[in-house]
Amino acid sequence: MTFKNLDTSSAFKQLQALPASDLKLVLSPDRIKACHAYAGGGLTYHYGAMPVAQEHMKVLQQLSDELSLTGKYQALVDGKVMNTGENRLVLHHLTRGQVGKSVTADGEDKGAFYQAQLEKIKRFSDQVRSGAILGSTGKKFSTVVQIGIGGSDLGPRALYLALKGWCTSSEIELLDAQFISNVDPDDAQAVLQNLDLESTLFILVSKSGTTLETLTNRDLVFQAIAESGIRGIDPAKHMVAVTSKTSPLAASSSVLDSFFIDDYIGGRYSSTSAVGAVVLSLAFGFETFKAFLNGAHEADMLALNPKVEENAALLDALLGVYLRNVLQYPTTAILPYSQALSRFPAHLQQLDMESNGKHVNRDGQNLSYPTGPVIFGEPGTNGQHSFYQLLHQGTDIVPLQFIGFSESQYQKDVVVEGSTSQEKLNANLVAQIVAFALGKSDGNANKQFAGNRPSSLLCARQLDPKALGALLAHYENKVMFQGFVWNLNSFDQEGVQLGKVLAAKVLDGCKGDEVLKAFSELL
Amino acid sequence: MTFKNLDTSSAFKQLQALPASDLKLVLSPDRIKACHAYAGGGLTYHYGAMPVAQEHMKVLQQLSDELSLTGKYQALVDGKVMNTGENRLVLHHLTRGQVGKSVTADGEDKGAFYQAQLEKIKRFSDQVRSGAILGSTGKKFSTVVQIGIGGSDLGPRALYLALKGWCTSSEIELLDAQFISNVDPDDAQAVLQNLDLESTLFILVSKSGTTLETLTNRDLVFQAIAESGIRGIDPAKHMVAVTSKTSPLAASSSVLDSFFIDDYIGGRYSSTSAVGAVVLSLAFGFETFKAFLNGAHEADMLALNPKVEENAALLDALLGVYLRNVLQYPTTAILPYSQALSRFPAHLQQLDMESNGKHVNRDGQNLSYPTGPVIFGEPGTNGQHSFYQLLHQGTDIVPLQFIGFSESQYQKDVVVEGSTSQEKLNANLVAQIVAFALGKSDGNANKQFAGNRPSSLLCARQLDPKALGALLAHYENKVMFQGFVWNLNSFDQEGVQLGKVLAAKVLDGCKGDEVLKAFSELL
Repeated sequence: MTFKNLDTSSAFKQLQALPASDLKLVLSPDRIKACHAYAGGGLTYHYGAMPVAQEHMKVLQQLSDELSLTGKYQALVDGKVMNTGENRLVLHHLTRGQVGKSVTADGEDKGAFYQAQLEKIKRFSDQVRSGAILGSTGKKFSTVVQIGIGGSDLGPRALYLALKGWCTSSEIELLDAQFISNVDPDDAQAVLQNLDLESTLFILVSKSGTTLETLTNRDLVFQAIAESGIRGIDPAKHMVAVTSKTSPLAASSSVLDSFFIDDYIGGRYSSTSAVGAVVLSLAFGFETFKAFLNGAHEADMLALNPKVEENAALLDALLGVYLRNVLQYPTTAILPYSQALSRFPAHLQQLDMESNGKHVNRDGQNLSYPTGPVIFGEPGTNGQHSFYQLLHQGTDIVPLQFIGFSESQYQKDVVVEGSTSQEKLNANLVAQIVAFALGKSDGNANKQFAGNRPSSLLCARQLDPKALGALLAHYENKVMFQGFVWNLNSFDQEGVQLGKVLAAKVLDGCKGDEVLKAFSELL
Repeated sequence: MTFKNLDTSSAFKQLQALPASDLKLVLSPDRIKACHAYAGGGLTYHYGAMPVAQEHMKVLQQLSDELSLTGKYQALVDGKVMNTGENRLVLHHLTRGQVGKSVTADGEDKGAFYQAQLEKIKRFSDQVRSGAILGSTGKKFSTVVQIGIGGSDLGPRALYLALKGWCTSSEIELLDAQFISNVDPDDAQAVLQNLDLESTLFILVSKSGTTLETLTNRDLVFQAIAESGIRGIDPAKHMVAVTSKTSPLAASSSVLDSFFIDDYIGGRYSSTSAVGAVVLSLAFGFETFKAFLNGAHEADMLALNPKVEENAALLDALLGVYLRNVLQYPTTAILPYSQALSRFPAHLQQLDMESNGKHVNRDGQNLSYPTGPVIFGEPGTNGQHSFYQLLHQGTDIVPLQFIGFSESQYQKDVVVEGSTSQEKLNANLVAQIVAFALGKSDGNANKQFAGNRPSSLLCARQLDPKALGALLAHYENKVMFQGFVWNLNSFDQEGVQLGKVLAAKVLDGCKGDEVLKAFSELL
């Protein structure tokens, strides 16, 4: 397996020589119909509004072949150490199904390990939901509260919000899920003050078992339980842990049960591991979570296809590289036309920016080309009444990733002026794609739209568990492929360390550091 | 009053010639102590970690004088038509106090008009909160639901979340506030399914009275009330309107009462008008809302000061111009170390990107320099476990705007390892500012931090109503000053029109537009 920098690739040099297609000239019904790839879980990736022609596609295929992108993915799922900086395997795909060979590490079959955890989570969530396991004062659990930060928060929270409506309309019994993440004590208080502690189960999530924010918030929860004055309440019967086998939390007697992950599941890739499985299986039931895993696994299998035009994640990755490295666009907007995906852009912010916001390659050498873009986004149509002004008429071009669904989740709608809300939602989505691509000329420059704003669209019939699983995996695999293209390690996060070290110094009384001392006087 | 493009300014040419200060060399305790300006409401703006020296400050003062920035602000508050594209005054400052001369328009004193609305809102909210006005079946109102989108949603929602904890700890009785914005029918359903309709008051907010999303969501609410089967419930007794006097909603008999705004309050500047006043006075009581207005007014008065170093909003604006137009940074991150400000960045996204995401000047000529940046952000410490990796070690530099408070809102905390959560939160904030500025050299390039990431900090003792008012006005005034610098109209939003027109066409059955037809087949 050879690794090389993007700017040493001959295909990339060809790509740089190709000017972008003028969307105003090329966008046509035939093009829209032709330009799509299946992404799994009922999800399809459309790229007709991307500024590329057949010759771009040919060169992108050459680039993929030259850099062995699917070969590297195959190596990753086969158990090669792809997180070289931390000397770790990268096994999140295995938490939702086997994509490559069986992988053995630390003396155990990793597929069997993840499967065993999943089965344990199934049994536990079934027992809690059926009332076979009750709170310490005899009440049935009706609320679960996840205590975690970063990957232990953003992904599971986004996924919970994404499927709540679907479960309601599918008449699946819901346990309410809430989340405490920030070390800001107001975050925990805002959640705690409205809880019925007797019917609440807390899920403490920290792979290392040492995350400052999470352990502090655990203590705030224990304090709240102690101060509640509820007779006979036993905090240990209201908390489970999700952690690694070797962490200090694993051996704790202060929890009801523990569920394990390992070092081969990065935080931002952990939603399909026990980190997401416990809270989502409790909230929605295990079958819903399993369907979500199946959607993710289907997307993972599709991502093995070396043919770029048939591999949605690979294609999305390569088109993104064209936008970032040839057309030099520094940001990307994620625009889901689905209120249920309101926190999905925040998850993608972590997934993408923490994975590929790097300036050194796998060998520790500085890179001379831009890597991961800034990711941001809010649901449509809300965004249309907010930052779309800049997207349409600002001085910079921002590539757009739309997400849409034909049907709503609750299936409760109203006809106003001849159309349902869902039809209005999708008419807006379609109209925006066209407006961004084609623009509009006008005698009044203030009403002129330059057009040629590139966009893609991921769409499915409905945001159900399978489609959501495929959506999550699509982006994980896209980010992975881009990391391969940029020749960087998408699986470490050294950039978060310095702040931690300095924060500890400030708390230590600013010893020997006058700058910190001065700053601490500000607050 | 003369308007001219930034690139014709002699001070700007001087600014372009000034290289950025190296933060690694200049950051010192003395500098931190020296570089700040009072921003009102107890809020202070710190800019010691901005890459500017005394000579930059001198030239920024020249630039401000040359472009008459405070003179233009004075003209705006004195009632000059600054929204030239739409031929409208810009009077949001007047909703919180008088900054300039008395302004008469449409045959009325506008200050008196806004004041009269405010007094009406005080009476109404007092009556609802005391139980003098009840729901149609005799229940006391305990929940208010704002139905609005864009400026009728983002600002009021962010402000509600920002003060909920403060009110709780101040023992102010809270009415629960919820928000329906998106035309996605799932947004309304998710709110409606958990409401006790008998004790819910809906606030319908649309200046024009024609906003598609808002009228559609009103009908979804009416449908839910009709289907509820609650005997004797009268929907008209459960809804008030916030609209302009001339809108179709104003004359509606299907509402309990109406509160007015006018064309001189832009949506994204409307949080201090009736758009924010009704929902926030109902939720928190009028006194809390009034304190919030007072904080905003104090910031407005401070923004008149022509001395750049004493005018926090003006200074923040000019430093932003240096970062955008000289150092060419295309994005800005908003990083509040306060969970209560979780949706404040989304409000600033609209405020900034919709105001200054323009490519033509006030005379309709194309601009040859970049204008408004992309704005994004999430609360710290959450962001530290997410996208900060890219901010620290990515290939692009992203300027940072931190916001912090010495004290929490709930004042419920716990000591873990010798410090409270609030102390940990602020230690992290301070540490991040230092880490971004100074970086760290390391033999291992993967653990190297280049530093020289510029940041500023807005901080106060506590996020209380006055500080929040000042914070909101600070950013409104910053954006206004930047619009003056870029010589564009910050108060229109022509970029949102094209999508609306095209969406209407799609709903009309794609008549005569094959591209739209093809797209609609996708969904």
